[in-house]
Amino acid sequence: MATPADTSATIKTGATETPANGVCKAMPDVQGFSDRRQIAIDRVGVKNVTYPITLKTRNGGSETTVATIDMYVSLPHDRKGTHMSRFLEVLSENREGIRPEKINAICRELRERLDAEDAHVRLEFVYFIEKQAPVTKQPGLLDYRVSFECAVDSQGNADFVMGVSVPAASLCPCSREISEYGAHNQRCQIDAEVRFTGELWIEDLVTMVEDAASAPLYSVLKRPDEKFVTEQAYDNPKFVEDIVRDAALTLNADERITWYSVRSENFESIHNHNAYAQITMDKSDT
Amino acid sequence: MATPADTSATIKTGATETPANGVCKAMPDVQGFSDRRQIAIDRVGVKNVTYPITLKTRNGGSETTVATIDMYVSLPHDRKGTHMSRFLEVLSENREGIRPEKINAICRELRERLDAEDAHVRLEFVYFIEKQAPVTKQPGLLDYRVSFECAVDSQGNADFVMGVSVPAASLCPCSREISEYGAHNQRCQIDAEVRFTGELWIEDLVTMVEDAASAPLYSVLKRPDEKFVTEQAYDNPKFVEDIVRDAALTLNADERITWYSVRSENFESIHNHNAYAQITMDKSDT
Amino acid sequence: MATPADTSATIKTGATETPANGVCKAMPDVQGFSDRRQIAIDRVGVKNVTYPITLKTRNGGSETTVATIDMYVSLPHDRKGTHMSRFLEVLSENREGIRPEKINAICRELRERLDAEDAHVRLEFVYFIEKQAPVTKQPGLLDYRVSFECAVDSQGNADFVMGVSVPAASLCPCSREISEYGAHNQRCQIDAEVRFTGELWIEDLVTMVEDAASAPLYSVLKRPDEKFVTEQAYDNPKFVEDIVRDAALTLNADERITWYSVRSENFESIHNHNAYAQITMDKSDT
Amino acid sequence: MATPADTSATIKTGATETPANGVCKAMPDVQGFSDRRQIAIDRVGVKNVTYPITLKTRNGGSETTVATIDMYVSLPHDRKGTHMSRFLEVLSENREGIRPEKINAICRELRERLDAEDAHVRLEFVYFIEKQAPVTKQPGLLDYRVSFECAVDSQGNADFVMGVSVPAASLCPCSREISEYGAHNQRCQIDAEVRFTGELWIEDLVTMVEDAASAPLYSVLKRPDEKFVTEQAYDNPKFVEDIVRDAALTLNADERITWYSVRSENFESIHNHNAYAQITMDKSDT
Repeated sequence: MATPADTSATIKTGATETPANGVCKAMPDVQGFSDRRQIAIDRVGVKNVTYPITLKTRNGGSETTVATIDMYVSLPHDRKGTHMSRFLEVLSENREGIRPEKINAICRELRERLDAEDAHVRLEFVYFIEKQAPVTKQPGLLDYRVSFECAVDSQGNADFVMGVSVPAASLCPCSREISEYGAHNQRCQIDAEVRFTGELWIEDLVTMVEDAASAPLYSVLKRPDEKFVTEQAYDNPKFVEDIVRDAALTLNADERITWYSVRSENFESIHNHNAYAQITMDKSDT
Repeated sequence: MATPADTSATIKTGATETPANGVCKAMPDVQGFSDRRQIAIDRVGVKNVTYPITLKTRNGGSETTVATIDMYVSLPHDRKGTHMSRFLEVLSENREGIRPEKINAICRELRERLDAEDAHVRLEFVYFIEKQAPVTKQPGLLDYRVSFECAVDSQGNADFVMGVSVPAASLCPCSREISEYGAHNQRCQIDAEVRFTGELWIEDLVTMVEDAASAPLYSVLKRPDEKFVTEQAYDNPKFVEDIVRDAALTLNADERITWYSVRSENFESIHNHNAYAQITMDKSDT
Repeated sequence: MATPADTSATIKTGATETPANGVCKAMPDVQGFSDRRQIAIDRVGVKNVTYPITLKTRNGGSETTVATIDMYVSLPHDRKGTHMSRFLEVLSENREGIRPEKINAICRELRERLDAEDAHVRLEFVYFIEKQAPVTKQPGLLDYRVSFECAVDSQGNADFVMGVSVPAASLCPCSREISEYGAHNQRCQIDAEVRFTGELWIEDLVTMVEDAASAPLYSVLKRPDEKFVTEQAYDNPKFVEDIVRDAALTLNADERITWYSVRSENFESIHNHNAYAQITMDKSDT
Repeated sequence: MATPADTSATIKTGATETPANGVCKAMPDVQGFSDRRQIAIDRVGVKNVTYPITLKTRNGGSETTVATIDMYVSLPHDRKGTHMSRFLEVLSENREGIRPEKINAICRELRERLDAEDAHVRLEFVYFIEKQAPVTKQPGLLDYRVSFECAVDSQGNADFVMGVSVPAASLCPCSREISEYGAHNQRCQIDAEVRFTGELWIEDLVTMVEDAASAPLYSVLKRPDEKFVTEQAYDNPKFVEDIVRDAALTLNADERITWYSVRSENFESIHNHNAYAQITMDKSDT
């Protein structure tokens, strides 16, 4: 019913031309049409793809989880559209054994398959780490949200950022100080994103960040453990400011890390809003 | 392009007939077609409508807020579809001065305008209540999520349910008991839904529920206030079980309330999962 | 600092007694205290636990995914609290090879370990099914949200409900009928929950529900596939009412299914709200 | 119980000193302590505050809605904490008659009251605009998410960004081109953020962005309206790339706008993932 001629008439901007190769009348490659609007697109692609991935773990094993994935390329001003199905094809061919260097390779492949200058990939997933309760040593799995993000530019340089979202406990120093007994405390979420050289495992970054809180969280706690973490938090009062500063001290001291952004959001047990602090540091600036 | 004859050919179930009135070729009322599948529909309508509403408050004033609204009717087995635009028309005509009895009236109007046996309306919105800090008396607004839900049946009887979602603080009795100092505490969310006779304001139900927690939350707390609520929570340790039981005691004692369901979810500051308890009580059963 | 005597003084309800066994001064079992409020609790336990699970698939393989889990038991009126850590212990011991009968076993084990009358478990997780594009047969994984829910009562009877949430496409019959060309269509989400006898796989239920839409969704579609699904949807116009009715016809015809609730929510491409319909049917009533 | 001396002993970093003024034993200002960690904080404050606000509208009236608000200041390296309650005090005193210039004033006041170098405020809220159906002229309210964001730097310069999130319809040019009949279409969400000089109303920006889609959305549509918007979308096929390019053309042409970022996310009715495109342009660069 509709023909290419019809289309170029109805597209308001009048920017779409007939296809360059001229022979695809039966099923035209509309995305391949040229575009006259003179506007390049920074990022175009697929967002919010849910996909299973398998990750290598620090202890040499592997872990299968579910990721939410965004994949983009840049598009030059004279091309009408990108080819969306190729993003999924690249993803489907690469979902085993995800590691930072693998994400970089996916990004490079996207750039080639989509014939683009830049490519950008972001995965966010739940990652489980086994932790023993502090006294009884009962094992349990704790869930962390992790992100792997990579951009490859027109020179083929890859920029990789790893992020972790660590749930922990914070106990208010002011409340402790001014009260006869007790101190308000609460769950907090500490997010850290880092650029680094060499090898850095999710488990490494989680530990650095978790140590900045008043106390870590656990999956299973028996009574002796609960006593331990209650007192540990009371012995380590931290404002949201203290959490990001103590995380920053640790991240400053690790020579692998070249850039970081660390944020803490404390779900205050005395308010219905949250306390928040953030520090971003590019070590190459100093 | 498409004609009614085409449609009935392509609908797989073959259940759609030509329109009863026969004269609507130009713009047929497809929803009004008859249906042969012999399957009645319990609820059909619009969901997740975002709309401003104005509520009467207990102190005689009014409050404008934003509601998320679902509106449904039942559909008999022999009618193909309902008329979706009429739901929005009824809503648009009734958005001022929302009170329980007004919701009942909207439900009755829906039933008539859609020529239905039953009608069902649910609004969920944020409601602000001014609270003074406990010591300094600093004023501030605290936000509560509230729901008004009404079903009108084929006899015209209205069943109204009011719900409030109250954020509060809970402090763990076990942690307090077994620890040398401190006690883990956290924000919790206490949800209560009630059926009632006579007049019951949102503010009334919020107070009943809030009193069951270890301490209430506030928008603004200066240091003397923070000391007060810290000690108040420590003096009122509550398991999630205690919160729903103490709320139940209050709801049992109020003669206006004929049915309730109360739930508490505590965002444990020692775990990354939540503690939860629930009690549902129909007083007419006892 | 705090002693049991202090506690009973400060708990407002005055309902907590000293522990029955009398010898746990050093680390009292506060949950085991008796309670005088005379209020039984319907459900108490843990909510929103994030945990990896491994499921058996219809083709004989297995699939590892991430579940959000709620686990509850009932609590008699005379017991102060349940033992939250045991829920996680039961979960941790049972996370391999999840199948409906395994969920029932977990429920029974919870009932015993928590010494409760009833137990209730709910898992919600993403499940991937490989689907080939309709024309080019390109493979790809599509993600479905699935729930397994089980309640075991005081007689030990298990009530199991399986649910699937199926994304699909709906095309409006009215829009097609009244327009010269085109028809508005959109993504919809069809949720079905079923009780059944015998064996029913996730894949079985997904197929029954998916067939009720105008067209299914795919992960990878090349141009011949896109043409196919566009025309398929246009050839199968469905109101939200048609979707739930056609799903009901299929669920009615399957003798394994004894009860169902099916809902469709259509994310209308002409409105910023959704169309919705729901049918619930207990076959034993008819 | 706890004293300042205790605290400095238990804070792991050993960075907290006794208060400068020396006389606040009874209720020390812990936030006012000095800090030796040598780490400045970029942003600290309150996040996710839910608060009612009243906005001036383009037609000279006002509209009350509910905002989610973040408020931050920077903190120098030698101060232990900020004073969280003051953020809420500033908010509470300024919630009437919100306009861009008012947000700038709030930011400046925060900077002074918190004695900070920089301040940052972000509000996100639902804003309703009355729209008439295209043929029958039936009125209805459509909801848009809007953001006002302001940063004031150490020189007192204010940087204001306004954002709108516009729901609309997109119809796929490729699907239309290659199919015998029909074309897949879907709801999309177009987000635009702009910096500007002079006066720019929410309504202005919404219109610029909405015009870039295949068709706008409405609250109430009768059958003649539904026919109109179905055909309008079919006559205006747009890839996600076309939407951001056509929005960019409009934003380029408006001399008030000095910088923008525009994004579209299309909730594809043939996939369970979304198509996405983004263009960011600083006009002062060109």
